[in-house]
Amino acid sequence: MTDQIRIVFALFPGVTHLDFTGPHQILARLPGAAITVASLEGGEVEADGLIFAHLARLDQIEACDILCIPGGFGVTQAMGDAAFLDQVKRLAWSARYVTSVCTGSLVLAAAGLLEGKRAACHWAWRDQLALFGAIPDEARVARDGRFVTGGGVTAGVDFALTLVAEIAGPGVAQAIQLAVEYAPDPPFQSGRPELAPPEVLARVRRIYDNGMDERVAAAVAAAAKLGKGEVVPA
Amino acid sequence: MTDQIRIVFALFPGVTHLDFTGPHQILARLPGAAITVASLEGGEVEADGLIFAHLARLDQIEACDILCIPGGFGVTQAMGDAAFLDQVKRLAWSARYVTSVCTGSLVLAAAGLLEGKRAACHWAWRDQLALFGAIPDEARVARDGRFVTGGGVTAGVDFALTLVAEIAGPGVAQAIQLAVEYAPDPPFQSGRPELAPPEVLARVRRIYDNGMDERVAAAVAAAAKLGKGEVVPA
Repeated sequence: MTDQIRIVFALFPGVTHLDFTGPHQILARLPGAAITVASLEGGEVEADGLIFAHLARLDQIEACDILCIPGGFGVTQAMGDAAFLDQVKRLAWSARYVTSVCTGSLVLAAAGLLEGKRAACHWAWRDQLALFGAIPDEARVARDGRFVTGGGVTAGVDFALTLVAEIAGPGVAQAIQLAVEYAPDPPFQSGRPELAPPEVLARVRRIYDNGMDERVAAAVAAAAKLGKGEVVPA
Repeated sequence: MTDQIRIVFALFPGVTHLDFTGPHQILARLPGAAITVASLEGGEVEADGLIFAHLARLDQIEACDILCIPGGFGVTQAMGDAAFLDQVKRLAWSARYVTSVCTGSLVLAAAGLLEGKRAACHWAWRDQLALFGAIPDEARVARDGRFVTGGGVTAGVDFALTLVAEIAGPGVAQAIQLAVEYAPDPPFQSGRPELAPPEVLARVRRIYDNGMDERVAAAVAAAAKLGKGEVVPA
């Protein structure tokens, strides 16, 4: 028998669902996995029109082996939510792996967990990690000690397979990869800023620029609470 | 203004959630998309421990432009659920695109929609399409007229980007690909039977073999209801 591996996904309003549904589908097949999907209040969380129900309350979870924080536009609010950050900090304390996908690394950073650590993040938000003393890493999956962080949204699948390989060995990861037929074949090569056609990059940047000031301000405020000066990201 | 594009995901108990959360996250960003996630009874559907709530009832949906059927182990039961298949047939009737991910194509087939059509499916179930007179296609995304079908689980992301490109043009698909940072970088090359190490393939086949007789019998029974003889899949 494999020992139980307690995995907690900590959701918040405005989470991007694929950030956690991708890893969830992979980790659910890890032998011994006992997954709890939770939020601060429990109950329901809406994500891009999908409603996830019967969530556990974070404060009802004693401890876990893997803590995973997904990202999403709601990170702007989550970075300023002291009660949520307290739960993240508490569960991270004893976790064997503290992890994130996409902008979830900004939540870990705002909880004061990534000082001096290399971390991945969605490309358009990655620079903001530096506000918290973390080291932005453009890898699809970044590893720094017990911190394992994935890049934007779909990086969560690569992240989860990497984690499974570490915990249960490459054979188990490969079996899960085969089970979910993960032989990606994108119809375009546009998944990173340096790959995307310039007009596509400009279009996406325009969308993100709308509201980016507010998001940067939230990160600066969260960093200030940790005693960080107002370092403007590069 | 872009015209509204009515998209329906039809869930059932035992669905594999990444089959639809992947495409959902992509299609939610398609300009004009109006997505309804539905099931036969509405309410809640559980999938690998995640509970999707506030689902619409299929019989309350008048029509849609894109119908998408995800797959999962529950397909075995769904193929024999006449009420569910009736709703699938009804919505498919007027849909511009009738689509599936993973073993969802077996549901389309059981609804009598794929006779003589090429369709993709999860690699381990693909042969069963032939029971229904459909033509198994090992492509990651198969296209036959208005039928667009994806392979196993993670193929849903490639499927959805292909559909977005067709509907809204490659620029929109590329922008969404960049937004979800879809530059996959699997840690292993094990996502198809011909790529996986033989011992990994054997391990996964052993898991699937457990219960495969029952699943094949369900497909044979569903095919018989359509007047198909008991053709044993190759």
